[in-house]
Amino acid sequence: MAHIKLINEDLPGIIGLLNNRPETAKPLLDLAETLLRGPSTLTSAEREIIAASVSYWNDCHFCHTSHAAAAAVHLKTGFQLIDDIKAGLPQTNVSNKLRTLLTIAHQVQLGGKNVSLENINAARHEGATDIEIHDTVLIAAAFCMYNRYVDGLGTWAPAQNEAYVEMGQRMANVGYGKF
Amino acid sequence: MAHIKLINEDLPGIIGLLNNRPETAKPLLDLAETLLRGPSTLTSAEREIIAASVSYWNDCHFCHTSHAAAAAVHLKTGFQLIDDIKAGLPQTNVSNKLRTLLTIAHQVQLGGKNVSLENINAARHEGATDIEIHDTVLIAAAFCMYNRYVDGLGTWAPAQNEAYVEMGQRMANVGYGKF
Repeated sequence: MAHIKLINEDLPGIIGLLNNRPETAKPLLDLAETLLRGPSTLTSAEREIIAASVSYWNDCHFCHTSHAAAAAVHLKTGFQLIDDIKAGLPQTNVSNKLRTLLTIAHQVQLGGKNVSLENINAARHEGATDIEIHDTVLIAAAFCMYNRYVDGLGTWAPAQNEAYVEMGQRMANVGYGKF
Repeated sequence: MAHIKLINEDLPGIIGLLNNRPETAKPLLDLAETLLRGPSTLTSAEREIIAASVSYWNDCHFCHTSHAAAAAVHLKTGFQLIDDIKAGLPQTNVSNKLRTLLTIAHQVQLGGKNVSLENINAARHEGATDIEIHDTVLIAAAFCMYNRYVDGLGTWAPAQNEAYVEMGQRMANVGYGKF
């Protein structure tokens, strides 16, 4: 049970929080929609992998599993991607560019000042543009918010990967316009 | 100089980033306006103090100093509030309720799962409502994002408190509608 009383206690993770406080839900959803599905030279799959990886590093089960499920839908791979993200994607065919962006995202997760010029130059060397670096930093930073929101209020989350399949399909195919 | 090329390199902190990427600026500003100036039983001064404290704990000089300056304008105290926040507000007359909410915010800054039922119950004991607890957690979480965004992209920030006086006046009196 969450730390605060919610209108609908059955809704898991951030969904119960968004449903409970529409005033703050709107900008939070607009930000997710822009970051993960707005116009970008990074695919939505790549951006969802960054979101899911940061959420895993922050130990946020709900956000990690749901965004990894969304990435799996975008990539049309199986849902084993959810667990592969935990291991650093050894079984997934991702570009060297994405791997260097994930290194930047990991440094952001640890703290903004951890990002080094070497991290930035490594991404540039693999072809990352300034906007792609910008959006990677902001996606990583944003999930440091969403993760703390979900866990700081003690929301519940389904344990098993299978429970997130439908959620991932909705996130990938419908998006974050409304819940 | 920031890690990426910005349209206007003279603009400090988050201002240069917002100016550079209007697509993401809009939901980021809408969120700040809602959290810090939207309808709430917490005053804007109290909410700016939470934002500034979290930013200080995250070692984000730009966000700490600018939001503390905004709080000082709301409270009509002097700008010594900027430094008093660093010390845990020994010289500022704030309620016991706000002190318990700041404890929750500090736990969120460390990681969402650090918030304990004891932290929540201490705030309730001082009269905090569920919405006030919710908004405190979300403000703290949001500044874990803004701080990482500002520092993760290596933006520059004026060093001296005096440089933030006009910025604080604008934030308190005009708000976050546009930059």
